[in-house]
Amino acid sequence: MKVDGKDLRTIWLDKDEKTVKIIDQRRLPHEFVIVDLATVADTITAIQDLYVRGAPLIGVTGAYGVYLAALNAPDRRVGNDYLLGEAQRIKAARPTAVNLAWAVDRVESVVAQATGGDQKVLAARREAGVIAAEEVENCRRIGEHGVRLIEQISRRKEGQTVNVLTHCNAGWLACVDFGTATAPIYAAHDKGIDIHVWVDETRPVNQGTRLTAWELGKHGVKHTIITDNAGGHLMQQGKVDLVIVGTDRTTATGDVANKIGTYLKALAARDNHIPFYVALPSSTFDWNLKDGVKEIPIEERDPDEIRYVHGLDQNRTTRVLICPPDSPAANFAFDVTPARLVTGFITERGVCPATAQDIRGLFPEKFVEPTAANG
Amino acid sequence: MKVDGKDLRTIWLDKDEKTVKIIDQRRLPHEFVIVDLATVADTITAIQDLYVRGAPLIGVTGAYGVYLAALNAPDRRVGNDYLLGEAQRIKAARPTAVNLAWAVDRVESVVAQATGGDQKVLAARREAGVIAAEEVENCRRIGEHGVRLIEQISRRKEGQTVNVLTHCNAGWLACVDFGTATAPIYAAHDKGIDIHVWVDETRPVNQGTRLTAWELGKHGVKHTIITDNAGGHLMQQGKVDLVIVGTDRTTATGDVANKIGTYLKALAARDNHIPFYVALPSSTFDWNLKDGVKEIPIEERDPDEIRYVHGLDQNRTTRVLICPPDSPAANFAFDVTPARLVTGFITERGVCPATAQDIRGLFPEKFVEPTAANG
Repeated sequence: MKVDGKDLRTIWLDKDEKTVKIIDQRRLPHEFVIVDLATVADTITAIQDLYVRGAPLIGVTGAYGVYLAALNAPDRRVGNDYLLGEAQRIKAARPTAVNLAWAVDRVESVVAQATGGDQKVLAARREAGVIAAEEVENCRRIGEHGVRLIEQISRRKEGQTVNVLTHCNAGWLACVDFGTATAPIYAAHDKGIDIHVWVDETRPVNQGTRLTAWELGKHGVKHTIITDNAGGHLMQQGKVDLVIVGTDRTTATGDVANKIGTYLKALAARDNHIPFYVALPSSTFDWNLKDGVKEIPIEERDPDEIRYVHGLDQNRTTRVLICPPDSPAANFAFDVTPARLVTGFITERGVCPATAQDIRGLFPEKFVEPTAANG
Repeated sequence: MKVDGKDLRTIWLDKDEKTVKIIDQRRLPHEFVIVDLATVADTITAIQDLYVRGAPLIGVTGAYGVYLAALNAPDRRVGNDYLLGEAQRIKAARPTAVNLAWAVDRVESVVAQATGGDQKVLAARREAGVIAAEEVENCRRIGEHGVRLIEQISRRKEGQTVNVLTHCNAGWLACVDFGTATAPIYAAHDKGIDIHVWVDETRPVNQGTRLTAWELGKHGVKHTIITDNAGGHLMQQGKVDLVIVGTDRTTATGDVANKIGTYLKALAARDNHIPFYVALPSSTFDWNLKDGVKEIPIEERDPDEIRYVHGLDQNRTTRVLICPPDSPAANFAFDVTPARLVTGFITERGVCPATAQDIRGLFPEKFVEPTAANG
């Protein structure tokens, strides 16, 4: 997407083909800094210390890490054992990131089949590039399918502003380009549809305030930051036409795990007859799960993410304590929105209602073994 | 309630009967400072600059302001015109605070009927004291009625911890003692019931984190701070037994205006079959209103309350910018929870379901003129 008029992705190979460029997302929105990754160690730091975040972007970063391993192998000794070891190190940077392991393994196995140092380097570079291109293409298609929903609302409102509410950051910063929840929004904006986005702040880590507001602003999309408390009131007052969020994990029956607070917005959308869509590449479906509330474990994170807030004081980034020093806090990172509250899914293959049957209709190859129907 | 083992109210007349003592609530939770009000000017500053907040406390502060006016009148010239002028000045400190005008007028009119300087001073002191005592008694009764709900749950759970969720601060800091939403909680705690409170942070101004957590902690009530996003997940997981909130204005039909985000918690409570109660003195009912969503205007406040967060950096209180400097924000202060989502009201006269008929049953004298039934 655009940053100050210039086209940008979250990760790219430099012209010299020796360094990988990323945005240090920890420093947004107060500083915009592009960082060079030249080694496996750099890659691990970027993943571990959250310079990069979002399943697709973490995966692509890991994929390029395998390329850097091959490129910088000592004495061009690009043996398979050596690369396997480097791949393990990269995967260990965030052991629970399914996408990271998947992308790293994919590059590593392609490289293992190539013969000779130069061929291995070439194969790694090509495969990392293919993974990045696939991620971009998936997001582009999500935008292409999702924009139709926005066009319909725009027509119904006779060209008046379409108001979309989103939670957290399922934007291009979490992907390589376009984003998931934001892909239909950018597509609508780029087609000249009058669109405005209500950006949930998304406490505790404020991905909405820090990242979604930043990327929408830089691309020139109209937006307004609101507290996580405000969405219900806005919906009640007719100020929201559509909700689009991303997801970290979605069951084969349509239950959606996403950033904490998503469930509350889905309830408000239902109470006010507002469509609530979830945008996702099909890789986010967990085909083995049937009951999200019971089966998806919810990570509890450091309470200090709640007790302290990060921001800019004068020209210095710092954190402030916002509660009594001895008050405990509990930090649940995700919640589960039951399928019954979800209007539909926007995937790279198209849009479908949030039922097991409709999901299966769109991705039949994932259900090769006949199972008892569940809906 | 207790602060570090010592009984305290939010406002009291000093032993010398010449100064009124208040807590400077702007500095909580990082500093606990008691401030003397010795003049009308002090009183106006305390009200205008938000040393004191909450309808009952603002009213009592204004009432004592009229006493200070009588006490300090130049040359004991406690003429009615002079006092009327001082009363006007006090009311102008927060012109939209209905409770302030009501309390100031009440003291002023009692004083007007007394004859002679000393009698007027005495009458003012007595009437301000009566208003404070009435506020305390209302809250005490809310606690007495509300604690039965908690006792029932405690019995049903065979003495296991009762988990109550609250939003914003409807605590003793907003009143003179006990609070409204907190009154049943303190009553349960003081009876030895095992109780724990989930404290919503309450963005943007963080009354939960700053005030509710502080007062519960100081009284020794178990509590945990959560983000405003977390309540739905906790209810879904069976970790909330009861929701109790306060209200700024409630219609005669039971629609509840309260701090933004209350509506979302009511939706989650309904979705998970959890009782959702609103605690209020009957003075908070607006007997003229029938449709809260349509009739109650929602104040929009300074967007910088969202864009900046206040807290403690090392030993210095400051504020940090948490969003891109050019991203706009919208700050809706309240929302309206429709009566259909409210289980019941806890008032000084008892508990009743949230219907026009039941409210009328508890306060029949407010409905002297027969009107068409509405439910």
